[in-house]
Amino acid sequence: MTRSPLIIDCDPGVDDAVMLALAFGSPELDLLGVTVAGGNVDIELTARNARILRQLAGREDVPVHAGCPAPMLREPVAAAEFHGASGLGSLEVFEPAGKLSDVHAVDFLIRTLRARRDVSILITGPMTNLATALVMAPDIAGAIRQVAAMGGARSEGGNITASAEFNIFADPHAADIVLRAGIPTLLAGLDATHQVRATKERIAQVRANGSPMALASAQLLDFSAGVERRIVGWDAPPLHDAVPLAWMLAPGLVETRPATVRVETRGDLTLGHTAVEFRENRAGVFNVDWVVKVNAQ
Amino acid sequence: MTRSPLIIDCDPGVDDAVMLALAFGSPELDLLGVTVAGGNVDIELTARNARILRQLAGREDVPVHAGCPAPMLREPVAAAEFHGASGLGSLEVFEPAGKLSDVHAVDFLIRTLRARRDVSILITGPMTNLATALVMAPDIAGAIRQVAAMGGARSEGGNITASAEFNIFADPHAADIVLRAGIPTLLAGLDATHQVRATKERIAQVRANGSPMALASAQLLDFSAGVERRIVGWDAPPLHDAVPLAWMLAPGLVETRPATVRVETRGDLTLGHTAVEFRENRAGVFNVDWVVKVNAQ
Amino acid sequence: MTRSPLIIDCDPGVDDAVMLALAFGSPELDLLGVTVAGGNVDIELTARNARILRQLAGREDVPVHAGCPAPMLREPVAAAEFHGASGLGSLEVFEPAGKLSDVHAVDFLIRTLRARRDVSILITGPMTNLATALVMAPDIAGAIRQVAAMGGARSEGGNITASAEFNIFADPHAADIVLRAGIPTLLAGLDATHQVRATKERIAQVRANGSPMALASAQLLDFSAGVERRIVGWDAPPLHDAVPLAWMLAPGLVETRPATVRVETRGDLTLGHTAVEFRENRAGVFNVDWVVKVNAQ
Amino acid sequence: MTRSPLIIDCDPGVDDAVMLALAFGSPELDLLGVTVAGGNVDIELTARNARILRQLAGREDVPVHAGCPAPMLREPVAAAEFHGASGLGSLEVFEPAGKLSDVHAVDFLIRTLRARRDVSILITGPMTNLATALVMAPDIAGAIRQVAAMGGARSEGGNITASAEFNIFADPHAADIVLRAGIPTLLAGLDATHQVRATKERIAQVRANGSPMALASAQLLDFSAGVERRIVGWDAPPLHDAVPLAWMLAPGLVETRPATVRVETRGDLTLGHTAVEFRENRAGVFNVDWVVKVNAQ
Repeated sequence: MTRSPLIIDCDPGVDDAVMLALAFGSPELDLLGVTVAGGNVDIELTARNARILRQLAGREDVPVHAGCPAPMLREPVAAAEFHGASGLGSLEVFEPAGKLSDVHAVDFLIRTLRARRDVSILITGPMTNLATALVMAPDIAGAIRQVAAMGGARSEGGNITASAEFNIFADPHAADIVLRAGIPTLLAGLDATHQVRATKERIAQVRANGSPMALASAQLLDFSAGVERRIVGWDAPPLHDAVPLAWMLAPGLVETRPATVRVETRGDLTLGHTAVEFRENRAGVFNVDWVVKVNAQ
Repeated sequence: MTRSPLIIDCDPGVDDAVMLALAFGSPELDLLGVTVAGGNVDIELTARNARILRQLAGREDVPVHAGCPAPMLREPVAAAEFHGASGLGSLEVFEPAGKLSDVHAVDFLIRTLRARRDVSILITGPMTNLATALVMAPDIAGAIRQVAAMGGARSEGGNITASAEFNIFADPHAADIVLRAGIPTLLAGLDATHQVRATKERIAQVRANGSPMALASAQLLDFSAGVERRIVGWDAPPLHDAVPLAWMLAPGLVETRPATVRVETRGDLTLGHTAVEFRENRAGVFNVDWVVKVNAQ
Repeated sequence: MTRSPLIIDCDPGVDDAVMLALAFGSPELDLLGVTVAGGNVDIELTARNARILRQLAGREDVPVHAGCPAPMLREPVAAAEFHGASGLGSLEVFEPAGKLSDVHAVDFLIRTLRARRDVSILITGPMTNLATALVMAPDIAGAIRQVAAMGGARSEGGNITASAEFNIFADPHAADIVLRAGIPTLLAGLDATHQVRATKERIAQVRANGSPMALASAQLLDFSAGVERRIVGWDAPPLHDAVPLAWMLAPGLVETRPATVRVETRGDLTLGHTAVEFRENRAGVFNVDWVVKVNAQ
Repeated sequence: MTRSPLIIDCDPGVDDAVMLALAFGSPELDLLGVTVAGGNVDIELTARNARILRQLAGREDVPVHAGCPAPMLREPVAAAEFHGASGLGSLEVFEPAGKLSDVHAVDFLIRTLRARRDVSILITGPMTNLATALVMAPDIAGAIRQVAAMGGARSEGGNITASAEFNIFADPHAADIVLRAGIPTLLAGLDATHQVRATKERIAQVRANGSPMALASAQLLDFSAGVERRIVGWDAPPLHDAVPLAWMLAPGLVETRPATVRVETRGDLTLGHTAVEFRENRAGVFNVDWVVKVNAQ
């Protein structure tokens, strides 16, 4: 089997961290690099947290590139309530041994995508890095094999506002740029991610593995479970960022529907809302595979 | 039993007509008047169609008042595709014997609501008439017992655009005014009305009644069934406008959830979208009982 | 000479009051009525203030109609800083002997404009009343001989915000409706009204007349002068609302330029801005005579 | 005298070319580089045109960096009508001998501004390059000595729309980013640039110099004069892009006023409008020196 070349763009963040743990441990992925943006917490923290996860996974072969510290146009949206002050919940953080790359995430994306045409990008934070790369070098759109992202909402309503999901809301202009770029894109919004829950049983299974990474993952999930219980009243937290990764590893787990998805960048009430249109006669050109169902097993 | 005093504000329109047929035949309603606006078709037609239904029902005791011919600010949205050129589908239309009242719908609303404090308003079209009355006389808001309206969408997405339902989209500014007025309001959006379908069996039951009104209703429903089949691909058309009326007649049929509902009046993509927030800590003051479930029997 | 039939729609307000003093004393005007809206101060006050001016002028033959108390969609904008708590600056207010009409301003407009086709309307406040009349009865647009209004700004920038003038900002949606209605319209914005100043000499001339109305006018102008000196740093206050009236009385005093004027109703920063386009090839249809110059003598 | 280190960011374009001719010939400027964006014409052309001007000036010591080909979010706005198909009017274009730098304009800006803190930037096109640099590396804002740009309008109204000037309208989001970045900024809008005209006498003076650059400049100005005569009806074209350069060379030629300038990015009608506020009590923090007067000699 050919390993699939992948760049992960994220803002860890508790659920990004769980996703990273899973990704670093997946030999079927050819991880070219991890890029981080400011988002769930400040970029100094997301850049450190990505390297903490890398160290726990023993994957110093994967470079970590820091990118844009804040959204393109809007004020940053704070989310420390959901991720703890460190961004990694109750996990004990440390200064990782491995260094940050001195290449900016945006430059890394442009260089890589101009050098080869088989790269996919997994995005689990605001889309600022890729959008900025597209502003500088629109030609890279045609070179991207696939974007798979966590973001948006339709049937479930929003989580950060009544009509918007956090990742898109965090940088709606960036999402607008990415979704209009003509790149093959899979979007796992809340409609999908609310179907995948970290139940107590699942967390126990993870912990039972016993590896440092498994123990860290279990602790991250416990933290999330506590937050969701306290804030939203849910028993088991959704594994948002794991869904697009799951699709990369096993596309059959996920059911999608072709859609035209556009992002509201002007409305006061609906900033960051994803308008999802399935009707072909109204949609114009479909630009997204919208995840409608996930096999949670 | 005290009969419940009611004004019906509508824009018939095929499904308004089915609702009117049901309302005119409901002795438990004390119908003070029917007001019409321009909407599904031009106001000359909605004003005539309401009187056709009134004549078929033998309810010349109920005055029909013509109101605002067009939305407050936006251009009118055409819907003849869904309602036929006459607004009543394939029903044979005629010039009704009964006259229009010479009192404008807006003046009728203000006068009535200043004279008594027990009146409910059922709205199944754009909310232009009530909104204009509220601009002229905001004091009437406190006198309205209840507004029950067909409008909006959350889980189902929109029908006229990806994110907006037709009635709210038809006059988003009017809906914004009504929903911010502090009136007890029940809103049956697409989430609710898609649960109530005119199946072939139900249409046959209606036709079997044999009265002129029943035959007309069956014919309207057949027309709707054809339209939905052709345009949306559905077998049985939703009975949109019947839902808020059903709640008035038998509140137990309907399950609601308190919500804050606001209308997007600025966004390009999301004009007329209803942002529905159930979370008390995010919502501010709840202003709507949002219908989440309907017992379709 | 035929006297020109006129309705004055205003929100007195110090400068509206000066304009009313002038209008009530102009025998060449056939004043059919004064309508008031909420604006500079609450409608209870604007309705009282119009009657105070009427009484001082001995013009009980002119009915005063109260209209819409607040803007169509936006929150009211407070202006008591410029007009004093009573709306009439330091003038001693009293409960006027003459009553308000019991006909709503909007109904009065519709009735009058459906009865005759020679009526002009002078607007010196937010355009809520006429806009609401147009929503209820768009047919009256074709019957209006002329609208002459104080509102908008181009070269002078805004006064209430960087880009918007107070009257239009006070109800931008109403102004949008009026300006799109196809009515012959003269607009005297800040570009014009800043050219007409109540200098000390002029105020002294008014006072020298000695009539109760002249003394009241002089006192109103003194109050305005104090406010402008304190807030804006000007020596002599602009006579905003007098400009469109001056044009009605002596068109030759005013130089206009055909323009397309549209109102921003969506932008955050520019809400209520008047976009004034003089270039015929860009403008589409001209809808306004924009006052560019006033002979201040 | 210390020569002032400067980066010029432009999109030549006829008037950019005149400005470049002037700048390349000014020994008091220490030109670190010229960056170009797509704007008046496509970036392939602006990148070539900058090198044509460089070659005519014999200034191969100055690198030319190509940057962002299109605005951040909006569709590109065509302006070939004003600049000719080549972007240089009727000037005979040729393939320049000197190469483009292979460093992207955005990277060049970031590198240079992180290496030294005495650099000014002259911008005479859309602000896409600097804005993108600020998204990638907000820290550079504090290192920029001065931005001087041609853009915006207040008293003169807009040129591309009723309320917006071309450069800001061409990328309003970029301008918004730059103006909110806390950089010392001089803005020469239409209020200023309409005061500086290339009269026939001035063009003749330029031509009389006889150098290849002077002849090219005279030809560019003749082209502009023809365009403005045909489209706007003016006898002598404004020298838009020369104004901020003139200020750099001789600050005393220009009179400025401190202002808060913000850019409309949402309004339909007013997209790209610059809201210019001079009143300290309304303005918040002043962010711009707004050019109000130019000594055209």
